[in-house]
Amino acid sequence: MSDRCILVGQSGGPTTAINSSLAGVIAAGVFDGTRIEGMRYGIQGFLEGRSVRLDEAFVSRVDIELLRNTPASWLGSCRYKLPLPSEDEATYERLFQRFEEIGVEGVLYIGGNDSMDTIAKLSEYGREVGSDIRFIGVPKTIDNDLVGTDHTPGYGSAARFVATAFNEIAYDANVYDLKSVTFVEIMGRDAGWLAASSALALAAPDLVLLPEAPLDLDVMVERIASILDEKNTVMVGVSEGVRTPDGQLVCERAAEPGVGVDEFGHLATLSGTGRYLAALVKQRLGCKTRSVELSTLQRCASYVASRVDLDEAFDLGHAGFNAALAGETGKMCAVDRVSDDPYGINIELVDVVSVANKVKNVPREWISEDGMGVAKELVDYMRPLVGELPAQMASLD
Amino acid sequence: MSDRCILVGQSGGPTTAINSSLAGVIAAGVFDGTRIEGMRYGIQGFLEGRSVRLDEAFVSRVDIELLRNTPASWLGSCRYKLPLPSEDEATYERLFQRFEEIGVEGVLYIGGNDSMDTIAKLSEYGREVGSDIRFIGVPKTIDNDLVGTDHTPGYGSAARFVATAFNEIAYDANVYDLKSVTFVEIMGRDAGWLAASSALALAAPDLVLLPEAPLDLDVMVERIASILDEKNTVMVGVSEGVRTPDGQLVCERAAEPGVGVDEFGHLATLSGTGRYLAALVKQRLGCKTRSVELSTLQRCASYVASRVDLDEAFDLGHAGFNAALAGETGKMCAVDRVSDDPYGINIELVDVVSVANKVKNVPREWISEDGMGVAKELVDYMRPLVGELPAQMASLD
Repeated sequence: MSDRCILVGQSGGPTTAINSSLAGVIAAGVFDGTRIEGMRYGIQGFLEGRSVRLDEAFVSRVDIELLRNTPASWLGSCRYKLPLPSEDEATYERLFQRFEEIGVEGVLYIGGNDSMDTIAKLSEYGREVGSDIRFIGVPKTIDNDLVGTDHTPGYGSAARFVATAFNEIAYDANVYDLKSVTFVEIMGRDAGWLAASSALALAAPDLVLLPEAPLDLDVMVERIASILDEKNTVMVGVSEGVRTPDGQLVCERAAEPGVGVDEFGHLATLSGTGRYLAALVKQRLGCKTRSVELSTLQRCASYVASRVDLDEAFDLGHAGFNAALAGETGKMCAVDRVSDDPYGINIELVDVVSVANKVKNVPREWISEDGMGVAKELVDYMRPLVGELPAQMASLD
Repeated sequence: MSDRCILVGQSGGPTTAINSSLAGVIAAGVFDGTRIEGMRYGIQGFLEGRSVRLDEAFVSRVDIELLRNTPASWLGSCRYKLPLPSEDEATYERLFQRFEEIGVEGVLYIGGNDSMDTIAKLSEYGREVGSDIRFIGVPKTIDNDLVGTDHTPGYGSAARFVATAFNEIAYDANVYDLKSVTFVEIMGRDAGWLAASSALALAAPDLVLLPEAPLDLDVMVERIASILDEKNTVMVGVSEGVRTPDGQLVCERAAEPGVGVDEFGHLATLSGTGRYLAALVKQRLGCKTRSVELSTLQRCASYVASRVDLDEAFDLGHAGFNAALAGETGKMCAVDRVSDDPYGINIELVDVVSVANKVKNVPREWISEDGMGVAKELVDYMRPLVGELPAQMASLD
């Protein structure tokens, strides 16, 4: 056992792959005898003095393998925005004091945008006070909206769930001899990466609606009507963050007075998009409509996890460990895609300041010209991250 | 090729396993050269003259294998209640004329309660008019509420999805350091079999609420409060059909004036149960609450199908084929369980009249004494139908 110590935390929303990154860190530490401390409930719990010795909790390969396949944040998470040192230096002093007490050589933080902001602030403060502790970010978010990396761990598994579930719902929607329109509502407030993955379903969507392409509701209704002239069942993959051309969220329409309120009169959340569109199409076209919200399972359906995603998440955790011990700081481990087919990547380090607080959207040219579908470039981008889907018998026409 | 012909249809709500029963029928027909005709959209589509030659559509083992793993009703389905012959003999005359034209020797109908009613009426009418066409029912329903059979195809896969999804949502709910209560709403209007399967989750529910046990809302809130004294996260599996002791559906409370209405002011459907309970607990206890509806995926999540379920569904289809050719009529193929562990079954034939229009509920003694959990007998009953669930790392305490 060396006297080196790496501290690791998980932050932000849970995903299917975030524990695989944690497993990558632990495996690296166990292999070379480095002590691995885990923050309970992220930097917030750590500030309250809560941590756990991971190299002692995970002594066998079986435990590490189980962790790889366990959804959500095993260490616990937080949604805590670190203040600027100029606003609250005491918090930084407490944190660095705790780091010193534990003998931390490097801090790894696995998370999304806010977590990269935390790493940026800590590494900057460390430089200012002359600390030699290293701070490295390991990306994760099902939204896939981080810049500086080809994609983020968690996205491939969430996308695989969306594509699989969309396909199954499409089969389910097609069993009766009647006209129907089904909206499948998919997470993604600002970026449409996850909603776009519905396009990978074997029973492919007729329309895919993303936040990046403003949605003219009249045009959509007309388009659906013309598809219904040709066949019974229309399937739509829709992002919860879709907006009309005036910039209004569709779900905000669902929250207008008297509609879209919850049981106790509170305004509904973003999840009204699919329900609003289903109600609108029913009102205009008179056919059966339905909205299915994929909900929480998008970020935790580990039974349909993407193998590529879990492997890359593990490797990125491992790379973060290596980077910290190699003396790097203020960096995020990132994926550089070499090729779509055959799929290949390199792992590299990027400056975390260039990543924090930015959002990567789906490029407009990866969306079909009419704004209601995905272009081939986007399909080619997504497919290797999601992997092969189980084969099924095509529907009768 | 013999000149024998079997006609097969699918009816009622789609499930993950109903195509496996169809595959069992087709495989039997292809093997011995019997012509297999399929009804498009059940008896209703067949009455309109719509059928398809299945032994020609499925020529390879690969196709049949794909069909086994395809969710929903490949032939199409209907929700059509056959009138009594005394009310509408013309419909029977048309049906039997179509049977004769096609040269049908036996009719197999794969479905739930209403489908068994159809088989009962057709076989009874056939007897009366001296027809020698045989009518056999093959059971399917995710609700598992048919009498005369230990369980129904479709249930095991739906239960496997529920247990798996419940487990993942439980992991997801436990990541933040705060008190929270999550209700997972599960299908089952009258019978709690499917909601009970949440008890198989590795991260087991704290409460399981079934329609068979009247729910005192005050007692439930008190119970949740006392569990929250011990730990952060309370998980509840709740059937959409839960009722209060006065017999009112909880979801009807959600539909009281001003609450639980949809975007266009229509009363909400059964799906308000979880949302109502989440809103109630939030109001009374002030903690974070959440309701997750498992929705459509319960009946179509083929990627998490139970192998036992798909195999039995296939075998029951095959058995129906054999029974029809052996001259049986007015029967349903049923499962007779020989043993829980090791799990073993026999397939037998039961009188379809004894099955139609009845509902099998969860026995009260299989529910825990306080009415908010499941007894060991029920777990032992469900476990072999669902199969082993993927191992995961237990949560930190």
